[in-house]
Amino acid sequence: MTSARSPRVAAARRLAKRSFRSADRRFLAEGPQAVREALACTPDRVLEVLVTDELAGRLPELVGLARDARVPVMRVTADVLASVAQTVTPQGVLAVCGFVDVPLEQALSAGARLVAVLANVRDPGNAGTVLRAADAAGADAVVLTDASVDVYNGKCVRATAGSLFHLPVVAGAPAAAAFDALRAAGLRVVAADGKGRDLDLADRDGDLAGPTAWVFGNEAWGLPDALLDMSDDVLAVPIHGRAESLNLATAAAVCLYASARAQRALPAPPSGH
Amino acid sequence: MTSARSPRVAAARRLAKRSFRSADRRFLAEGPQAVREALACTPDRVLEVLVTDELAGRLPELVGLARDARVPVMRVTADVLASVAQTVTPQGVLAVCGFVDVPLEQALSAGARLVAVLANVRDPGNAGTVLRAADAAGADAVVLTDASVDVYNGKCVRATAGSLFHLPVVAGAPAAAAFDALRAAGLRVVAADGKGRDLDLADRDGDLAGPTAWVFGNEAWGLPDALLDMSDDVLAVPIHGRAESLNLATAAAVCLYASARAQRALPAPPSGH
Repeated sequence: MTSARSPRVAAARRLAKRSFRSADRRFLAEGPQAVREALACTPDRVLEVLVTDELAGRLPELVGLARDARVPVMRVTADVLASVAQTVTPQGVLAVCGFVDVPLEQALSAGARLVAVLANVRDPGNAGTVLRAADAAGADAVVLTDASVDVYNGKCVRATAGSLFHLPVVAGAPAAAAFDALRAAGLRVVAADGKGRDLDLADRDGDLAGPTAWVFGNEAWGLPDALLDMSDDVLAVPIHGRAESLNLATAAAVCLYASARAQRALPAPPSGH
Repeated sequence: MTSARSPRVAAARRLAKRSFRSADRRFLAEGPQAVREALACTPDRVLEVLVTDELAGRLPELVGLARDARVPVMRVTADVLASVAQTVTPQGVLAVCGFVDVPLEQALSAGARLVAVLANVRDPGNAGTVLRAADAAGADAVVLTDASVDVYNGKCVRATAGSLFHLPVVAGAPAAAAFDALRAAGLRVVAADGKGRDLDLADRDGDLAGPTAWVFGNEAWGLPDALLDMSDDVLAVPIHGRAESLNLATAAAVCLYASARAQRALPAPPSGH
């Protein structure tokens, strides 16, 4: 059992602060799902796993995964874990991970067809939920611009539900340079904004069938005009009812799934149907 | 100026607790957007508006709306408002409202074509975000079953961003009776669940073109088998990437917008395109 004052525990605890995360290039992944995905998808980035006896007894395969990946496993008491974890009810396990983000060029090198760009997204829960939706929709990469929240923020990591470890993530990219690189890689840069054309009309006209980088802005004030001007197109999820707008993550999911559908163009239904 | 110990302020403050909301059949709508939508859409349900001088000076039209609706306006200090508000940073105004929910029969009486049913949704933020997405997608009603969160929970009300006042909301409906009533009103009851058929295939086959009641379950454990068995169909948002699932509200938005699109069947694009 490791004490709360052990240097390794203290080194993990300080990762709650962004400045220390940046200095150490490390972050925390909390809970069984995040730790499992980290070990399964990016084992070389997992530096250490802290686990309570209770959780290790309940989920022995998680400890086995860590052993298989030759990741040191530290047994701690629930109190020590709680002193490191950022959740109110820590789930008995967390991993200290090295940063997983990659340069934009690397993220696009395999010929990306669907990318989500988070520009000026400041709420960590929203950012993580969009990242998760992008993963589900089959996006090839997620890019957070330098005006967005830290993707390694604990709330953001938790909201990704493991997706942070599933697909290439680019962090801190300047928006203008990112737009240029995306275009150079053959993607249309499409801003999601309430001022845009109707998404369904654009979809009907085939505008979503090609490689697309969706740009999502700040929930409260959307995208700045400078970014709208730099985009190849501006599309809006149609509002059929009386709502003023959609929540950022739900709007992003609708846009990303519209692209996923258009890019997969299902065969016609069997005749006679 | 009204003191924090005034009986009217105390009567508002106790609405933070569900038991008092149920006893009084009243709840709080916090912030300029919620208060504006309450006054604009359901003025007869707004019993009182509490506002700071600062906010009244900045948004005089909000006070005007209340006056036009003959709703009493109580000037309070920021401290008094904070003592009533449930947000950490209250935005200077809140309304005491009577319950706005309606019986299911009334919600369906106008011939509903798109309904969202929240079954076993326990997170108030998720419930409110689904309600907002349902409004945006043009749903005719939202039904919360008796196993779901209280729709008048402060976090839920805030997450609806005013949509609580935009469309008929049914609260506390037993699921089985609600399914029967929806079917009797001509709607197909479709459960959204990861175990279901592919949503896009169902859409292609025309299965979403008719009147549909979507049933959404608990984020952590989905829908109980009993409710899946009671549904006419079970559909899943396809997962193209490595995510295990979507967040509840994003999945609901994708489903509701798929129905909205199918029910609106856009005309073919102009020839030559």
